[in-house]
Amino acid sequence: MKLQTARGVRDIPPEEKIVKNKVVESLTSMFERYGFLPLETPIIERFETLAAKGGAGTASDALKETFTFQDQGKRKLGLRFELTTSLARYVAQNPTLKLPFKRYEMGPVFRDGPIKLGRYRQFWQCDVDTIGTSSMLADAEILSLAETFFDYWKLNVVIKVNNRKLLNGILTQAGIKNKENALIAIDKLEKIGVDGVKKELSERKYTSVQIKNLFTFIQENRTLQQITKIITDDEGKEGIEELKELFSYLNVLGVKNAGFDISMVRGLSYYTGTVFEVFLKKGNVTSSLAGGGRYDNMIGDFMGGDRIVPAVGIAFGIEPIMDVFKEKAALGVGSIAKAYIIPINTVQESLQVAQQLRSAGINTDFALGKKGVSKSLQYANALNIPYVIIIGENECKQNKVMLRDMKSGSETLLTVSEVITKLR
Amino acid sequence: MKLQTARGVRDIPPEEKIVKNKVVESLTSMFERYGFLPLETPIIERFETLAAKGGAGTASDALKETFTFQDQGKRKLGLRFELTTSLARYVAQNPTLKLPFKRYEMGPVFRDGPIKLGRYRQFWQCDVDTIGTSSMLADAEILSLAETFFDYWKLNVVIKVNNRKLLNGILTQAGIKNKENALIAIDKLEKIGVDGVKKELSERKYTSVQIKNLFTFIQENRTLQQITKIITDDEGKEGIEELKELFSYLNVLGVKNAGFDISMVRGLSYYTGTVFEVFLKKGNVTSSLAGGGRYDNMIGDFMGGDRIVPAVGIAFGIEPIMDVFKEKAALGVGSIAKAYIIPINTVQESLQVAQQLRSAGINTDFALGKKGVSKSLQYANALNIPYVIIIGENECKQNKVMLRDMKSGSETLLTVSEVITKLR
Repeated sequence: MKLQTARGVRDIPPEEKIVKNKVVESLTSMFERYGFLPLETPIIERFETLAAKGGAGTASDALKETFTFQDQGKRKLGLRFELTTSLARYVAQNPTLKLPFKRYEMGPVFRDGPIKLGRYRQFWQCDVDTIGTSSMLADAEILSLAETFFDYWKLNVVIKVNNRKLLNGILTQAGIKNKENALIAIDKLEKIGVDGVKKELSERKYTSVQIKNLFTFIQENRTLQQITKIITDDEGKEGIEELKELFSYLNVLGVKNAGFDISMVRGLSYYTGTVFEVFLKKGNVTSSLAGGGRYDNMIGDFMGGDRIVPAVGIAFGIEPIMDVFKEKAALGVGSIAKAYIIPINTVQESLQVAQQLRSAGINTDFALGKKGVSKSLQYANALNIPYVIIIGENECKQNKVMLRDMKSGSETLLTVSEVITKLR
Repeated sequence: MKLQTARGVRDIPPEEKIVKNKVVESLTSMFERYGFLPLETPIIERFETLAAKGGAGTASDALKETFTFQDQGKRKLGLRFELTTSLARYVAQNPTLKLPFKRYEMGPVFRDGPIKLGRYRQFWQCDVDTIGTSSMLADAEILSLAETFFDYWKLNVVIKVNNRKLLNGILTQAGIKNKENALIAIDKLEKIGVDGVKKELSERKYTSVQIKNLFTFIQENRTLQQITKIITDDEGKEGIEELKELFSYLNVLGVKNAGFDISMVRGLSYYTGTVFEVFLKKGNVTSSLAGGGRYDNMIGDFMGGDRIVPAVGIAFGIEPIMDVFKEKAALGVGSIAKAYIIPINTVQESLQVAQQLRSAGINTDFALGKKGVSKSLQYANALNIPYVIIIGENECKQNKVMLRDMKSGSETLLTVSEVITKLR
């Protein structure tokens, strides 16, 4: 039998999982800094829930790519393909929930789709959502949270912000009825340029008048002020008002990197207002690091349409953020153990030193078994452990230990408390 | 459509997930204190892997309770029912892995079994294992880690330690060949007493001579010293030697709560040496909080039998530990936000105060939308947030805020830096 992982999924080995844990921990502490509460929904959902009308399942390819199976009672089940469906179910099942409900959830989701480079059948999502308020304060809070996170890691990002009501208004004003295809084309503005978008629109049978009208709005670098002057459609005006309110809050909150971008559409169709995406300003990682927006209809529709449940949320891309972290060794992500103790016929004394270091909060590993010193040094080196502590009988007699800096190779004879001071 | 979770799985709501995160975080930091590395294996495995001979799947009911399905390429897959199978596969797939490989992994596992109180079809496992060394130092390290964890939370535990070689030796010396059923009976000593075990053994057709011989060893409170004197079987003697070596290390490591218990068997059949279980000394939680042992054959068998890969590990029970935490409110597990800000016509100034608190590391929530003050206070109360900060125009003029202690109801007029000092 050949032992291997299932197709399209993979192990995350320690050196990578250390980085992932760092991303997850720092996201978590930022979410909690803003008062979001943790929630854990199950990985298995009833197929009926995943396929519910109004949910993302019916609005995308996700449902086709759902892993489905039955339990022993022949109930049809599926692995979740996103976290929002489960959130909507949770809100529906808990009518006494205090609103706004501010929650975050992180965990694996599954898609039985084609396998491409960097695309897996199991991957993590990380969602932060505020359910039950239409206040732009909620949108502002989420963008402030995102900026605080990237600031903390000294990552230079730009947050592109737009509004679906404004986009709809512009399309209406341009005389365009089939809005979806037009939005798909606009979304490509940065990638294929004005001429490319115009070409695609005319291929999609939009008239030259429609295209001309549209481009009075979506020329590159159109400011909010410029658009405000020429918009007459009511929905568009509402979008403008929302954006202005949002930017006023962002200003007070000290958010510096958020800017209006009329060509930012964000594909998924359930957005109803604010939409945003976060990109790195420089570097090799060009995919968005986070993105989201307001979806005021989705949860209510999903619940059967009696209630309106406004919502706004952001999803952080764990994988692209990990890629950025990996690029920047400077982010202080390294090994787990800070010290590796090698006893030379001094197991008892060395075990005591290990406990002293651990009590002092220093992550400490210990040479198990009967390897020689040079093998043990190789092991510490392979695990990227920065310091090795060698304890021979000679050191014991002097009540000292030999501290070896694995980077420089230098060795110093120190007392245990000197080692603790140095490593802490 | 009725929105509900799939049968046998459940949501973990914020008040419970906060506790769970606390348990997970503190376990993680303890594992890393002892130099264990994180690993994440996928939730989906090939069915062939789960069913591999030598693995836990064939040794237990787990395989019968595996959720199975196919991907779109008709490959047979399953949801993992434990973490050890995936660890064994990982070790097999990575022959260049530096040994000993010390790893921890936490995450959901799945069993499509009958639903009982407190038994779910999705539940978390938390495993710490040292692969590739037969040194008793590894066993000692894991028990020291466990005690350090429970000490940290001031939980009074007892760690019961035994050895399968010793048990096998005793059974051999008592003339017992069908060892498995005898072990099942011995395992019940604490629950059903000496007479109960004797009765069960004679029902299982062991002779009165065999039972008498057996009980010269497994009388309650038999010490290691007493058993040492009467054991003659070689495997039994080896078990004694291992236990003595283990306890000598535990002594040096300062482990105080570990004791020998000849009746501790630990059901699973793949253990080969040390076995141990951790229980709370007092309190309502009587199930074991952690348990494990040495399994020197399992991984090698699983890999096809060419290599011997010794291993020792412990599994922490997230759910029983959560139950203990919930019982002891004193463990400092509470709400996420420390402060909830209610602006009264002072949104801008209040947002700035929120940012000042967050920058100072204080988890801060903010009243979104247009609720009145008393509704907002109710909200903060429902979320267990200990402090509310009310900012009206009057407070703004004085450059101060009103800090309300939600427990006592007392309100104090303070500057923002005074609030930070108080809440930090």
